Amino acid sequence: MTTIPRVQALTFDVFGTVVDWRGSIIAEGEALNRTKGLTVDWGAFADAWRHMYGPSMDRVRRGELPWTNLDGLHRMCLEELLPRFGLDGLSEAERDHLNRVWHRLRPWPDAVPGLARLRTRYVVATLSNGNVALLTNMAKRAGLPWDCILSAELVRAYKPDPVAYTSAATFLGLPPDQVMMVAAHPADLRAARAAGLRTAYVPRPLEWGPGHTAEPVPEGEFDVTARDFLDLADKLGA
Amino acid sequence: MTTIPRVQALTFDVFGTVVDWRGSIIAEGEALNRTKGLTVDWGAFADAWRHMYGPSMDRVRRGELPWTNLDGLHRMCLEELLPRFGLDGLSEAERDHLNRVWHRLRPWPDAVPGLARLRTRYVVATLSNGNVALLTNMAKRAGLPWDCILSAELVRAYKPDPVAYTSAATFLGLPPDQVMMVAAHPADLRAARAAGLRTAYVPRPLEWGPGHTAEPVPEGEFDVTARDFLDLADKLGA
Repeated sequence: MTTIPRVQALTFDVFGTVVDWRGSIIAEGEALNRTKGLTVDWGAFADAWRHMYGPSMDRVRRGELPWTNLDGLHRMCLEELLPRFGLDGLSEAERDHLNRVWHRLRPWPDAVPGLARLRTRYVVATLSNGNVALLTNMAKRAGLPWDCILSAELVRAYKPDPVAYTSAATFLGLPPDQVMMVAAHPADLRAARAAGLRTAYVPRPLEWGPGHTAEPVPEGEFDVTARDFLDLADKLGA
Repeated sequence: MTTIPRVQALTFDVFGTVVDWRGSIIAEGEALNRTKGLTVDWGAFADAWRHMYGPSMDRVRRGELPWTNLDGLHRMCLEELLPRFGLDGLSEAERDHLNRVWHRLRPWPDAVPGLARLRTRYVVATLSNGNVALLTNMAKRAGLPWDCILSAELVRAYKPDPVAYTSAATFLGLPPDQVMMVAAHPADLRAARAAGLRTAYVPRPLEWGPGHTAEPVPEGEFDVTARDFLDLADKLGA
């Protein structure tokens, strides 16, 4: 067990860290292939959709787009993707349902039992670029036992904007060094650390599918490194 | 069972509607009396504290005070109250602990089982002037099974400001008429209705202690009236 004095709350990145967005989109997409007699490569579709997310947020950050929540950005990206994958024929209701696949993502197998243990000792909250409705619907469906839903949407500042991290600590009523960011992405953790939060790295080598590896990080760069949320609970004494 | 078509989410007032602030403050205060050999009338103390809450929010609304969350307003009021009740001698740590009694309020007996039922059919969220940390800590301690913590603090607009209600619907990703405000206070419900939400009145005649009555409302003024959260679950088909 690592001793991290004074940490009261854990804030979690969600896409990739808590839920398997790629596997979930593939599973729903392949069901759609069967229903509609399609042959879409949903792994490629999921990867393309996810790759459009950063640039679309950058347009909001640069002020080229007014504030747009993640449901809105996902939908803009989706409209670009559909013709590229031969899916122009989807109806408005089908497009809306597909866009909300992000509300239906499935957790990694350790996520729910790990959070249940961590929650006994810490406040556990999301800290995601996903919007509040997306995170709330996902949690309800998947049984993710959050104490609180925190989102970039609350302050209209997408991670890695420092305000996203510092406002989370403010909303939790804690100084930043009593809050630990948990993420599978070193860049997220580096931004959290620069904002004064503690950091826990949980690599998710399967995030982009089999055959990928997690980004290597220098030994000791983050306060804690854990294999999964159960290992994190062990290491944080929960 | 009342049929309220299309309602997807219920947002709850908290102080008085979900938790018994007066009884909780009296219980903690009387324990403090015993520990410290005091003779404070904690019913009078609780009532005085609660009566100062509206005027302190009004100072924020009028711009006389910069944005101050409810922990901050409670503390300002507390500093005025302590000398009036002979409690000048409390240390800073004791004052801070007493101020956080609002994080430790106890639910009415029907609140947790009622919410557990309502949650099976609806998204259940707070919509309180309490700050996020207060509501999160209260929920964790009392076992209140919220799907989402929504607060005036998120938009820096205290109820009955219409923005408090409309922003809650926006965060939940729903049009206002798919959200139902649940409260023990007709004024809260009237403001919610004016903002386009549906309304459920749950009178709490014991909020101000024995011997008081709930505010009478015209028959049919609100979409639903229920005796408690279990009756509300019956009436909303949960």
